[in-house]
Amino acid sequence: MSFRSRSLARFARPLALPLAAGAAALMLAGLLTAVHAADNPPQLTGFSPQDAASELAWEQKFDALPSPVRLRADMYHLSALPHNLGSERDHENAEWILHQFQSYGLDAHIEEFDVLFPTPISRSLELIAPEHYSAQLKEPPVAVDPDSTDPGQLPTYNAYSPDGDVTAQLVYVNYGLPSDYDELAKLGISVKGRIVIARYGMSWRGIKPKVAAEHGAVGCLIYSDPRDDGYFQGDIFPQGPFRPWQGVQRGSVMMMEVHPGDPTTPGYGSVPGAKHEKPDTLEKIPVLPISYGDALPLLRALAGPVAPENWRGALPITYHAGPGPAVVHLALKFDYKLTPTYDVIARIPGSTWPGQWVIRGNHHDGWVNGAEDPISGLDAELEEARAYGQLLKQGWRPKRTIIYCAWDGEEPGLLGSTEWAETHAAELEQHAVAYINSDTNDRGYLGVEGSHSLEHFFNDVAKSVTDPETGESVWERLRSHRIEEAKTAADKAKIENRPDLRIGALGSGSDYSTFLQHLGIASANLGYQGECNGGIYHSIYDDFYWYTHFCDGTYVYGRALSQTAGHAVMRLADADVLPFQFGDFADTIALYQRQLEELHKNTAGAPAFDFSPLSDAVSRLKAAAARYDQAFAADAGSGNLYSESAEQLGALDQLLLQSERKLMDAAGLPRRPWYKHQIYAPGFYTGYGVKTLPGMREAMEQKNWDEAEREQAIIVKALDAFTAQIQAAAAKL
Amino acid sequence: MSFRSRSLARFARPLALPLAAGAAALMLAGLLTAVHAADNPPQLTGFSPQDAASELAWEQKFDALPSPVRLRADMYHLSALPHNLGSERDHENAEWILHQFQSYGLDAHIEEFDVLFPTPISRSLELIAPEHYSAQLKEPPVAVDPDSTDPGQLPTYNAYSPDGDVTAQLVYVNYGLPSDYDELAKLGISVKGRIVIARYGMSWRGIKPKVAAEHGAVGCLIYSDPRDDGYFQGDIFPQGPFRPWQGVQRGSVMMMEVHPGDPTTPGYGSVPGAKHEKPDTLEKIPVLPISYGDALPLLRALAGPVAPENWRGALPITYHAGPGPAVVHLALKFDYKLTPTYDVIARIPGSTWPGQWVIRGNHHDGWVNGAEDPISGLDAELEEARAYGQLLKQGWRPKRTIIYCAWDGEEPGLLGSTEWAETHAAELEQHAVAYINSDTNDRGYLGVEGSHSLEHFFNDVAKSVTDPETGESVWERLRSHRIEEAKTAADKAKIENRPDLRIGALGSGSDYSTFLQHLGIASANLGYQGECNGGIYHSIYDDFYWYTHFCDGTYVYGRALSQTAGHAVMRLADADVLPFQFGDFADTIALYQRQLEELHKNTAGAPAFDFSPLSDAVSRLKAAAARYDQAFAADAGSGNLYSESAEQLGALDQLLLQSERKLMDAAGLPRRPWYKHQIYAPGFYTGYGVKTLPGMREAMEQKNWDEAEREQAIIVKALDAFTAQIQAAAAKL
Repeated sequence: MSFRSRSLARFARPLALPLAAGAAALMLAGLLTAVHAADNPPQLTGFSPQDAASELAWEQKFDALPSPVRLRADMYHLSALPHNLGSERDHENAEWILHQFQSYGLDAHIEEFDVLFPTPISRSLELIAPEHYSAQLKEPPVAVDPDSTDPGQLPTYNAYSPDGDVTAQLVYVNYGLPSDYDELAKLGISVKGRIVIARYGMSWRGIKPKVAAEHGAVGCLIYSDPRDDGYFQGDIFPQGPFRPWQGVQRGSVMMMEVHPGDPTTPGYGSVPGAKHEKPDTLEKIPVLPISYGDALPLLRALAGPVAPENWRGALPITYHAGPGPAVVHLALKFDYKLTPTYDVIARIPGSTWPGQWVIRGNHHDGWVNGAEDPISGLDAELEEARAYGQLLKQGWRPKRTIIYCAWDGEEPGLLGSTEWAETHAAELEQHAVAYINSDTNDRGYLGVEGSHSLEHFFNDVAKSVTDPETGESVWERLRSHRIEEAKTAADKAKIENRPDLRIGALGSGSDYSTFLQHLGIASANLGYQGECNGGIYHSIYDDFYWYTHFCDGTYVYGRALSQTAGHAVMRLADADVLPFQFGDFADTIALYQRQLEELHKNTAGAPAFDFSPLSDAVSRLKAAAARYDQAFAADAGSGNLYSESAEQLGALDQLLLQSERKLMDAAGLPRRPWYKHQIYAPGFYTGYGVKTLPGMREAMEQKNWDEAEREQAIIVKALDAFTAQIQAAAAKL
Repeated sequence: MSFRSRSLARFARPLALPLAAGAAALMLAGLLTAVHAADNPPQLTGFSPQDAASELAWEQKFDALPSPVRLRADMYHLSALPHNLGSERDHENAEWILHQFQSYGLDAHIEEFDVLFPTPISRSLELIAPEHYSAQLKEPPVAVDPDSTDPGQLPTYNAYSPDGDVTAQLVYVNYGLPSDYDELAKLGISVKGRIVIARYGMSWRGIKPKVAAEHGAVGCLIYSDPRDDGYFQGDIFPQGPFRPWQGVQRGSVMMMEVHPGDPTTPGYGSVPGAKHEKPDTLEKIPVLPISYGDALPLLRALAGPVAPENWRGALPITYHAGPGPAVVHLALKFDYKLTPTYDVIARIPGSTWPGQWVIRGNHHDGWVNGAEDPISGLDAELEEARAYGQLLKQGWRPKRTIIYCAWDGEEPGLLGSTEWAETHAAELEQHAVAYINSDTNDRGYLGVEGSHSLEHFFNDVAKSVTDPETGESVWERLRSHRIEEAKTAADKAKIENRPDLRIGALGSGSDYSTFLQHLGIASANLGYQGECNGGIYHSIYDDFYWYTHFCDGTYVYGRALSQTAGHAVMRLADADVLPFQFGDFADTIALYQRQLEELHKNTAGAPAFDFSPLSDAVSRLKAAAARYDQAFAADAGSGNLYSESAEQLGALDQLLLQSERKLMDAAGLPRRPWYKHQIYAPGFYTGYGVKTLPGMREAMEQKNWDEAEREQAIIVKALDAFTAQIQAAAAKL
């Protein structure tokens, strides 16, 4: 691991002007920070009563520290210039973050990896028949938004498209899902030898060229339809937050569903001197993202059948499927080169169990200025770290080691986090307790997805954070919201009758992927959401102007994220026993099992399928989980647990933190061995979206019943290993 | 009744050119006319076996007569020039139709009424802030479509708007339904003193200014949103059939939900010399229909809250509710004058029961050229009449009198039919067996709505007509279609298990209204539909070019309509006993009763309501209906029925044909005494759309539970009178 320190003076830009506007609001917001005073003797899972009291006292001190003024200032600085991977500012930001960590009093360093990262040399898209149109492929500056004229903006493109120069008839393929091609086949339309135009949405963008290529297409355009991401949703930038006519969603199309990270070092760290193989996760056909302004002349030039009603967007045309008479010429050339990534890593050593690591991360690279994505999340992370620096000075000593990470190269393919985690795989497998991620942060309701052995834990954490708008806890607000949104009385009752709110499962799309799905480290992703819709994702308009005008301009939800992730990290680091609980996990696996049975029942022509191996394994899991949770409660309640030695407790912790590892299978999922987790994976045909029990579920979706049976056996093996692990843990209680 | 004959030479226009194109297709289609040969001794409700055989033989002869070539030629002639009420061509068309009836050998005449009919003197619509735009208010000619340049097109307007000159802020009110104003109230938006812009759809257009005025608006614009009626639906004219950017839907906004017909002679015929009162069905605020091309600058200039998602159309803007900053100036001036209507009436006297009248009608006036609306339906009616002329020459003698009507002034407010029916009310109440209407005719599936005592009859009729596309009966095609479209297995089973296909109930919107809802004459509306969508309704583009390019260009569905209505009229006229059956009616009323109980159950805060008076009446009705249908079947099966004298049978018929009259209440519905039918009415707040058991249903919808209870008593009284009538009829079997 390397350590560097450089002068930071040249990164500064004046703060006075932009701060003036929101300062009053920020100060008021500061006063409103509520503190949840404990009326009764505190109960905190994994803490003895006296340690719980101490913990809550430290959390109360912590809560006062994250500052909206600083969140704003940090965002202003970090989003001041385009800071994509490979840019000068990206490197400067890494150094600035390093300096921040150090200024907080933390031990920090930068780790560097060399990753394959293509940038455009030339891009050209023309409609050449039945009339001519040259696509602009350029997001125009906006007068009121100073950052929109920043130098060094990365052109609009999809990273990991191959070079290509193709001329062919155009076909509109809706979202480009496999089912959309089925629909085209019904209309008698083939995309073979043609260029497809798909709209963003419903699947991760990288899936669209993959599926297009599988159907014989020679090129792929992806555009943002204003129905989904533009004026239909609301006023467009800069009048409103939504995507304007020439706004483009950049983004990676790396085949991350096969594996994320550097395409030339699959499964191992691309440290200096590492062997770089032939890349294995590049798209097969040239692909380019375009604005709806550029898509309009192309789509308008299509004839053929009128597109099915649910394919039609909000452009002022009749949507046709084609093929042709529109003929387009797409020519793309990229500079594929090894590029250094700069991960910034800070560490607070644990006082009791330094070999147990609680890891927290957020990326720092953006596609352009990236104020929302990722600085809104990184901001919060920095304030957490700064607060720890303060607490350490006041005498706080976490029992476990805390590692704070600011990842580089997330946007192109989770590069920084993956290479770091692959490099440190052996240590992480041994030491990692959990990985807590964030990325963008908005306003509204707490979003938590993650490992269900931490579901109960995150419910407790959410009860400890005050919502800046309502003054109730963010847990209460989320619960009311879910009850309100419930479609049926039965759904409502399910929420009301379950002590814990369900948390979602993790697919992919941010830096937790390698920790969870490749290494089996219990993970979670946190963020506030739901109240700042917009359409600047991965465009030049994701900047300070947009964020302060249309999103969390008072930064009170930035502070809420600091408090949420901060409490989570502190509790995991300070607990006497790691607060893993398994009842929710077992309940969730049982739910997934029922979903698979439903899927089978609703698949026309499906053969009989014996789910009993899975259901038996779930029964065993449920029994063991109940036994652990009950034994834990009894042992903790009696105080016996906390009277044990640090060594004994550490041994129990070791079983607990290893439990998620047991859900891995060394051989990985079919056709993508990098993904080893048997419960959670991104979809092979949907991308970011999670598939739970993925081996079985995806085989069933593809109607490959033999594979589904084989995968069932693998899942059962993993569940049984997990069950054995928590039985062993229970035996220690 | 007056009779006139005039020279027709001047109306002719050459047929050769437009006929050439479709002639081959027409001839082929002619060859494909299938005849449903009866394999077994024929059974026809109301006919003795030998009369059934004779009837079917006559129908077979009839079926060969309606000619696609003639349908095309007649449409070419009748739609050659704009022929709105009051135009020279409207009068000429009436004379031409008269001449046609006479040329078929029928006794025919024209009846003339003077009706109040406004036409525009001046229309002006401007956006005056925040920028200026003068609305075009003009449908441009289309090069390929010769009729689009015809002289004498009626300008785009809503008939029965008052004069007005208003300048006010604009508010977007979605479809302008009462619930839309509730939504606006939630957003804190009032339309008081403002001009509303509503989109066409969901309610009849005349309801929109009425509801707007009730909420204090001072003006109303109605536009066709391309989401509902334009490019979102498909290619626009002339590339496709859908409404182009400057296409406008003309139409009446007379308060037809209060009563249709001349606003100055409510409830009595506006014969020469009749007293003309102050009009009582005019709108209260100026209202103007506009194109989406003209609506775009207005809607784009609105600010205020973004419209709810389901309010947003397909224009390339963010839809805002307003109010303002858009300010519009709307100035309208009309020439309100008495205008002659020319109804053409032909009569074939009955041989056995001349005092029993089977009436058939379709209007002849259009808004402009009106090829689809109404000539596609009138066409078929003329071919039916021509065929009867042929059959009469071959010896066919209908037992009952047949009256064929071509109505004038339907578009402004069912003027011709209403004035004729009000004028002849006493005779009609005594003599009318049934009224069978058609209006526009397209391609596809048979549509039948009407009195449910004729539901079984129309099922039989539909089984006797061959679908030109599939070769099966139109009944079989409709049944398969409904089964295919059924959303749930239960819905599918309901269709499969019921011997008769359900027919819809009649609201308003065409000339059956006065017959059914004011006079209590069993009625039906027939037409083929579902396969020529388009957007030329009430525009200059509803013409011969559009119809032949985008609709029933081979006129085989025109022939199918002739055959369908023709069989219905012939069977009603020829039957030994009128084929009314009451089981379906009772079943349908029971369905409506259940709907009301559901409505009550689903109305939050509704008090307890005693449905037992209604359910008891339905039970009595069911018993009487079953008794009649069974007795009829037994008596017909044994042959006893048909051995009775013409006088005895005529007396039974008289009870049957009067049965629908028993469903009337002399005092009419609350706040609209003209509507006397207690089962079917157009909605007071929806317009065309039917409300069944309207007195109760609308009171319940308005949460006026006292009125609902009073109306229940009136409905029960009507149902009991109906029950007594069919008991009396059953007693004659």
